[in-house]
Formats: sequence, structure tokens, C-alpha cells
Amino acid sequence: MLQSKLFSKTLRQAPKDEVSRNAVLLTRAGFIDKVMAGVYTYLPLGLKVLNKIKEIIRAEMNSLGAQEILMPALTPKENWEQTGRWNEIDVLFKLEGAGGKEYALGSTHEEIITPLVKKFASSHKDLPVYVYQIQDKYRNEPRAKSGLLRGREFSMKDLYSFHKDEADLEDYYDRVKKAYLNIFKKCGLRAEVVEASGGVFSKFSHEFQVVTPYGEDNVVLCGSCDFAQNTEICQLKTGEACPKCSGQLKLEKAIEVGNIFKLKTKFSEAFDYKFTDEHGRLQPVLMGCYGIGPSRVMGAAVEVHNDDKGIIWPAAISPFQAHLLVLDDKQTKSAAELYRQLTAAGFDVLMDDRAESAGVKLNDADLLGVSLQLVLGGKTKTGEIEYKFRDGSSRGVIKLKKVSRLFE
Amino acid sequence: MLQSKLFSKTLRQAPKDEVSRNAVLLTRAGFIDKVMAGVYTYLPLGLKVLNKIKEIIRAEMNSLGAQEILMPALTPKENWEQTGRWNEIDVLFKLEGAGGKEYALGSTHEEIITPLVKKFASSHKDLPVYVYQIQDKYRNEPRAKSGLLRGREFSMKDLYSFHKDEADLEDYYDRVKKAYLNIFKKCGLRAEVVEASGGVFSKFSHEFQVVTPYGEDNVVLCGSCDFAQNTEICQLKTGEACPKCSGQLKLEKAIEVGNIFKLKTKFSEAFDYKFTDEHGRLQPVLMGCYGIGPSRVMGAAVEVHNDDKGIIWPAAISPFQAHLLVLDDKQTKSAAELYRQLTAAGFDVLMDDRAESAGVKLNDADLLGVSLQLVLGGKTKTGEIEYKFRDGSSRGVIKLKKVSRLFE
Repeated sequence: MLQSKLFSKTLRQAPKDEVSRNAVLLTRAGFIDKVMAGVYTYLPLGLKVLNKIKEIIRAEMNSLGAQEILMPALTPKENWEQTGRWNEIDVLFKLEGAGGKEYALGSTHEEIITPLVKKFASSHKDLPVYVYQIQDKYRNEPRAKSGLLRGREFSMKDLYSFHKDEADLEDYYDRVKKAYLNIFKKCGLRAEVVEASGGVFSKFSHEFQVVTPYGEDNVVLCGSCDFAQNTEICQLKTGEACPKCSGQLKLEKAIEVGNIFKLKTKFSEAFDYKFTDEHGRLQPVLMGCYGIGPSRVMGAAVEVHNDDKGIIWPAAISPFQAHLLVLDDKQTKSAAELYRQLTAAGFDVLMDDRAESAGVKLNDADLLGVSLQLVLGGKTKTGEIEYKFRDGSSRGVIKLKKVSRLFE
Repeated sequence: MLQSKLFSKTLRQAPKDEVSRNAVLLTRAGFIDKVMAGVYTYLPLGLKVLNKIKEIIRAEMNSLGAQEILMPALTPKENWEQTGRWNEIDVLFKLEGAGGKEYALGSTHEEIITPLVKKFASSHKDLPVYVYQIQDKYRNEPRAKSGLLRGREFSMKDLYSFHKDEADLEDYYDRVKKAYLNIFKKCGLRAEVVEASGGVFSKFSHEFQVVTPYGEDNVVLCGSCDFAQNTEICQLKTGEACPKCSGQLKLEKAIEVGNIFKLKTKFSEAFDYKFTDEHGRLQPVLMGCYGIGPSRVMGAAVEVHNDDKGIIWPAAISPFQAHLLVLDDKQTKSAAELYRQLTAAGFDVLMDDRAESAGVKLNDADLLGVSLQLVLGGKTKTGEIEYKFRDGSSRGVIKLKKVSRLFE
């Protein structure tokens, strides 16, 4: 894409009404635009990143054998009353429509998925069922000042699994846990698996927490083993001994980017969803639910990967594979030819063809944070180009005809 | 995909609470599930069709030079008050959140896009700007009994254009009109361009109407020229003379699948959005807006393309490219091998590997409506397969090694 055509622009000043680093950088770089607290528009660059994260998640869901569906955001009050959550979930957005009909905007979808799967999977032969969606969710947050980390409207991938026995649920739960770690790794995030409250039906649920000073969650991690708990269920502090291995614990701030939960019969009981087993007897269906917020992953990636110049996108979720900068008018032709070649080879390149100074272009490129910069400047020899990986891992000069190697 | 793995199933009975043909067929065939009136879940088959329609639209939008963004559904009351539409749009869903903050669920997005583009495009050098999104919209419909044709929650592609003069707006408006006709043609729909009310700022807007006895709109069409008007602005009836060519008019029922509108300065004035022209003078920005409902296109395609056995998907929006039926256990191996080959060649095939009778499989295939059926039955000779195009255009027997020809 040609940067001169991009309708969004970088801003020199940080937005006055944002405090979180992700919102400040994503706004300045032209990825998002704030409509109101906790509600953003994704501009062309931001939507590209969001879609890449969704595709990474989608690929892992499909390889877990899960089938994609799309449930509505508008959901009937009756379903929420059946589980008792109409009054229980304090952040549920409620509204009234024609004829006095009451609705909630889905903050989660157990109330919709459970009666749906009940319609189709009534025999042991129909189970297990794994279904997911990627869709926008709503939370009536009293405070929403963390940019993409705590939205009133935010994107969510929610997977639900339905099983005939606990062993089958346990097995799938572990498979999802591994898939989640793959997803976060691909998105450039190191996520810790942290124990959290399991509610009435399970001892623990598990959260995927990315440690960063700007996190809103507090977690206790062991330096020697995999013990990790959210402080909501853990009274231990930095310096105390790990209850599992006696190693030293550390209290850290973290961003929750995903969670998985053994719901067991909580929702199948509420909707009287049973299946017929091999002997013709009715048995309760066991459920699991598994969430990742793509927009929150985007925010977390920015919180973790940035410097004083701007964003440093991990390659897999970078809005473009390369940012081609033309710093010298004499290089315009070579740049256009290189852009044509790279695009024809299937690479997704942003070319800064604007009539701006070299300084503005270099600063904007660092602010935008595309993972690889290719620079055609005044000093570049014919047939060569400068390159710089935004994460600082490597920079140098490469022959133009070898440039596609950098994309490997 | 293996049909035995699909968690949704066909239903023998028509749903009792649906009157429209699209909702009856899409529900029976397992494409959608009704959550409540006007609100549906897209099951795996339905989501595939919806996504194919969205991709057809997206490709045409991109070739119009439009940039994709994603605006929120949750929008602040203030923006709607600024245009006077908070009280003007009777189907606006309104809700109240924490701190007494009031919101509308977007039924259209002029109130969000206008202040957004105003931030970035203030000079004549920045114009024109073309921006679109594909996103869910909400309408508090008093009656919603037409399946996907009139939803309370429905998908929408909305494109907005911003111009410095009327000639530029006119030119782009015509380009969009042509792109829309391409889209509907690709989706297997013959859409008539019908004049409708243009509001205060334009004489006419244009609707894209698919003529069918089950349509909710009434249009007057000339049999001899391109004169076509919605009865909302036209008093003429069947048999009367065309005001343009004196040909004979006909009154028809139709489904509106898209509309385009020259908004001119209606919204730029409301948001005080002006640009600086070549002489440094402030001038009003002119706008156009252009909508297509992908879910409505899906419903319209079913209304138009069906028979007493089920749906007949146009090839480009068929959930799969082929439906492979195995009617004889002896053919299971050949079928699995053919399925493997077709899938490896990049074709998207649904194989009915269920333990069901030939009759059930054939009936279900006709109900589902995949555009091409491939049948391995008891009478099939080794090395051959029966094929049938669901639209009745052709059927016969083909050598297995030539089967990929049918996909061309």
C-alpha cells in the first residue's frame, strides 16, 4: 500500500485523554481512534493487525477440531434469567426494544450456545462438540481508561466444548491450554498460565497472563517452578516460599489475555441439557469455555513491545511485512520498481511515498513499528538497500535482488 | 469437510415460528438458528455463505480504492444529537450505561465516520476519501418476521465517500453503482437500479431491488427502458405508460439488497466539516453513502433460488464447491480417495460420510443446495462418478480423473 493514500495519519502530539501506553501509541500512530472511553474505531492499520491476530487464533481453533459459528450480540433476557445471570453480571448492558422486549448485549455466550448445541447433540454419538466464534462483546465498565485492555466494546474469541464425561473434558482442556500458548507465542507474547478462581464447579480456572508493569492484574509467580496464582486466590507475597517447591515467589503486574474454565454442568443444568448414553440413560453434559480477546492481545503486544520512538510489532502481527522508505527523490523510480516486485511476489509492503522529509519518514516508521524497514536513501549504492528490523535484532545493507530473504 | 463431523443437522420439519421462505429453508438445512425474532446465529454452513458474500463485496470495495476500517456498534448519544437523529430514527436501539451515559446501537454510521474523517482530511490534497466497513448493525424493528430480510441485528457493508466538489461525488457515485451491479451478479442476483426518495439534498437516491413475489418493497418497472421507481415516490401502476419512453409499466414486489445516497453536505454541515481549497478558502465537504447488507443478500439469494426440495446456491456463494455423496458402502474407499484428491487440489468439498440411507443423503443434499453434487452410488462404474448441478443446468457421468473440470 502507498502511504500517501492512507487516509489516517500519525499525530505529533499524544492524545490528551489517554493514560495507557497502548492507547497513546496506537492513537498517535493512526491504528485506532477513540469514539468514547473504552470504545474505539479500528483504522486501516489497526484493522490489519486485529485481523492478523484473529487469523492466528482461527487457525489454532480449526486445528483443535472446533467449528466456527457466529452468534448475535443482541440476546434475550429470558436466557439470562434461566441461568440467574441477568442480575448477577453487574457489567451486563441491558436495553429495551419494541413491545417492551428486554435484551442484553452479550458479554459472554453460554446463555446462547448451550440451548443451541442442545438442539443438535442429544446422543452420546453426537458428543464431543467444539464450537467457537470471533465476535464483539460488550461490558458496561464503570472505568475504561486502559485503551484496548479494558473495553466497553471489544473483540472476543469464545470457544465452548461439550463432553460426555470428565476425562474427555480434561483432555480437551489440556489441548486448548497448549493451543493458547501457541497463539500467544505467535503473537509475540510470553504468557504465564496462572491459577484463578474456579467458581462452584471447579477448584481452579486458568488465566493466561502477560507480565508487564502496566498490567491491571496481580499475580504471584514462583521463580523455580510453574506455580502461578492470581492474587484474587493467593495471599502470598514477594519473597515468601513457593507452596509447591519452596522456591522464591514474586508478585508481578500482568495483563490477562485469555482464560479457560471447566464449567462442567453449570450451564447444562440451567438449560436442562442431558444426553442419552450407550445404555439409553440420560446423563448431564459437561462443558468447558475458553476465551481470548483479540483486541486485548493487540493492546498487550503494544504494552510489551515499544520503545521511546514507538511501537515494535512482532513480525506475525505487524500491519505490513515491510515498510519501504524513500528518502531521496532520486530513488523514487528504484523504490517504485522494488515495491512492484515485492508486491508481485506476494509480500505485503507499505511504501512511504509521501512528500515528507527524511526525518519525518524515519520517525513515522519507528512510530508505526512495522517489523522490517527497508530504506532507500541518498547514500544507498545502486542495486543495494538498507534494512533494519524494528526490534533491533539486525540491520545492514543487502543487495536488492536478495531482499526477499529478509522476509523468511 | 466431513458431514458426520458437522454439529448442525438438517431438520425434517419446517420451524413453526417462521413464515418467510428464506428462514424456513435456511433453518431446515442447518444454516441458521433463530435466537429470537429478527436475530439469528449463523451455523457453520451459514457462516461460510455469509463470509463468501462479504469477500465478494470486500474485493469490489478495495477495487474502488476504498479503505476498510471497523467502527463500533456502541455509539455516544452526543453524536446523534448533533445531527438531530437521536429522536428522528424511530428504530434506533438506545441504552444507558454506567454513570448515566447514553448510547445508541448503530443502525448506520454517518455520526461516527464524519467526525473521524474530519480529523484527518482537512485539505483539498487529502480528498477524496473512501472508507468502508463490514460490521453488524441494529434496528429496533417492531415486526421482524422475514428471516434474514429484516433483522434486528444484521450484517452491513457501509461505504462513505468524501469529496471536494459535486462532479467528483457524481463520478464516484456512478463507479459505486457499477460495482454494486457486479457484486449482485456475482452473488447470483439480478438487481434493478430503482429510484427512491433522495431526501432534502438530492432528488433521488438509488435502491438495488431484486424482483421476487416474496419481496417487502413495491417497485414500478418499465418493460421497455430503464425507468424504475419505488412506489414510495411513484403513483403509477401496472399497465400505465412509462413517463420516460411511453412503454408499459409493471408493478412488482422486490427485495432491497442495497442502496446508494448522495448525502452532499447533510452530515458535513452537522459536524462543521469543511476543507481548505487550493486558494486557502474553507469549503463544505460533500459526502456519499453506500450500503449493502450481506445477510440480506444471503436471504434474497435463497428467496430467489430454491425449489420444492430446498436451496439452490449460486456457485460463488455456495457453502462448498461440491457435495460428495457416498450412497453405497462399497464405494467408501473410492470416495475417501476422491475427497482426499479434491481437497489436496484446493477444492472445498463437503463429503456425506454419514451412516444414512441413499434417500436421506440425496434429500439432504438437495435441501442444503451445494451448487454441484458428486454421487458415488451402487450403479457407478469403477473410475466414474455421477454429477448433478443443483440448478439443473447439467447432469451426467464423468471419469473420476476428469472431475476437476466440473469446478471450472
